[in-house]
Amino acid sequence: MPLYRVTLAYDGTEFRGWQVQREGAGRTVQGVLEAALRRLSGGEAVRVAGAGRTDAGVHALGQVASFELRRDMPPAGLARALNAMLPPDLRVLEAAVAPRGFHARRSALSKLYRYVLDTGPVRHPLRRRYSGHVPVALDEARVAEAAALFLGRHDFASLGSSGGSVKTTLRTVTRSEVLWERAPRLSLVYEVEADGFLRKMVRSLVGGLVAAGRGERSVAELRLALAARDRRAWPPPAEACGLTLVRVDYGAVIT
Amino acid sequence: MPLYRVTLAYDGTEFRGWQVQREGAGRTVQGVLEAALRRLSGGEAVRVAGAGRTDAGVHALGQVASFELRRDMPPAGLARALNAMLPPDLRVLEAAVAPRGFHARRSALSKLYRYVLDTGPVRHPLRRRYSGHVPVALDEARVAEAAALFLGRHDFASLGSSGGSVKTTLRTVTRSEVLWERAPRLSLVYEVEADGFLRKMVRSLVGGLVAAGRGERSVAELRLALAARDRRAWPPPAEACGLTLVRVDYGAVIT
Repeated sequence: MPLYRVTLAYDGTEFRGWQVQREGAGRTVQGVLEAALRRLSGGEAVRVAGAGRTDAGVHALGQVASFELRRDMPPAGLARALNAMLPPDLRVLEAAVAPRGFHARRSALSKLYRYVLDTGPVRHPLRRRYSGHVPVALDEARVAEAAALFLGRHDFASLGSSGGSVKTTLRTVTRSEVLWERAPRLSLVYEVEADGFLRKMVRSLVGGLVAAGRGERSVAELRLALAARDRRAWPPPAEACGLTLVRVDYGAVIT
Repeated sequence: MPLYRVTLAYDGTEFRGWQVQREGAGRTVQGVLEAALRRLSGGEAVRVAGAGRTDAGVHALGQVASFELRRDMPPAGLARALNAMLPPDLRVLEAAVAPRGFHARRSALSKLYRYVLDTGPVRHPLRRRYSGHVPVALDEARVAEAAALFLGRHDFASLGSSGGSVKTTLRTVTRSEVLWERAPRLSLVYEVEADGFLRKMVRSLVGGLVAAGRGERSVAELRLALAARDRRAWPPPAEACGLTLVRVDYGAVIT
C-alpha cells in the first residue's frame, strides 16, 4: 500500500490535542484527520502517525503525519481531497509519497517549537488565541541566561513525562533562543529545537523562563531544579495557547 | 462632566461592527462598551463616539472612543474597571482625560488601516480570523503601481459611500504602501493612511489591488474606474476579516 506524508497546520483552540483518546472524549486532530481519510478510503479505517502529540490548545504551522492508503493517489490530489473534507481550522499544506519505512514520529530527527508570551498589562484581544499572557515586565538578561541553561543534552525529568514508549527523559536541545517582539506589544518569543520533547516540556521550559524573568528563581536555582529530576522542583508550565509546533526535520534524504 | 478618551483593541470576528444598530440587531463594540459604562455610572446611559465606524468582522489595534462620565475617575482606574467588565475580545489599552471639546471622530486628523491578504494555495488555519484569502500569486509590480494611484486627494465615490453627516467623498490619502510578508506565508500587507475613509473604502482599495495583481484590470483601467465616481466601475471589496484599524492621530496637542 502506498505510504503518504502530509504537512498540517491547525488552530489548536477547538481541538483537544493531537491524539485520539477513548471514544467520545472530544475532537482531536488525529481523529478529524482519520475520519476524513476513512471517507476517502470508502469506509476503511486508516491509522495516522503524528510527529508531535500536541496537547489541547497547542497549534501547528508544520505538523507532519504519515499513513498508508489502499488507494494510489497523486499527492496534490490527496491534499485537495482532504482539504475539501477537513474543517477550516485544520489544513493540509503539502502531501508527498513517503519512502518505505517512513514514520512521522520515529523518523523525525528534530522538532522546532515556538512559544509567544504577551507581557503587556492587559491580554490583547488580537493575540489571545495564539499567545500566553503574563502581565509583568520580565528581566531580559535573566530570561536569556535561563534559556542558555537548556542547551545541550540533559535529563529533563523535572520538566515532563516521557509519555510514549521511549522511557528515557534525556533530550538534546540544539536551539534555545529568546527574541523580543517590540510592536505592537512587548512579547517574548521563544524558539526551541531538540531531538525530541517530553510531554509539556516546552511549556515547562517557558515556565522556567518566566520564573527567572520575574525574579522568582535565580538561574542557579533553575539549574538545581533541572538536576533534581523531580517535577515538583520546577516552576509551573505556561498555558497551552501560546505554543506552536513550527517544523519537523527528517534530514536530507526525505525532505 | 469630565470627558474621557480611551484607546481600544478588539477582535472583530464576533462583533457586528462598531456602531449600535436598532434594538436587538446584534452585538456591537459601541453597544458592549456603552453597557459597561452604564453599569459604571449606576445605570445612567452613556453615549460613546468612536473614531472609526468599523464594519462587522473588522478588527482594531488602536480604535479611539470618547465619552462623558458623571463620575470623576482617575484614568488608570477607569481602564481597570472597564476591563473587569468587558469581554476578552474587547479591551481598553489606555484611558486619558480629554481636553474640552474633544470628539473621537471629529477631532481625528488621520487614521491608519492595515489589510492582510493571505495568497497561499490553502487558507491558513492560524491566519483565517485576521486575513483575507485569495489563493493566487499576485503580480507585485502591478500591485505597487495600483497602490501609488491612490495617493493624494481624490474623489473616492467609486469606492464607497460617505455614510455619515459629511457628504463629500473627497479624501486625502497620505500613505498607500504594500509590503510582502514572506514567512510563514506569502501575504500582502497593505497600509493606508488618510484624513478619513468612506464606508468600505479600504476593502475596496484592496479589491482594486487584487484586480491589478491578478491582471484582471490594468492600472490605467483602475485610474478610469476611480475617475468614474461610480461604484459599479470598481472591483468588489475584499472581505472584512483582513482589515484592522491600527491607529488614529489627533496631532501633537492631544496625544
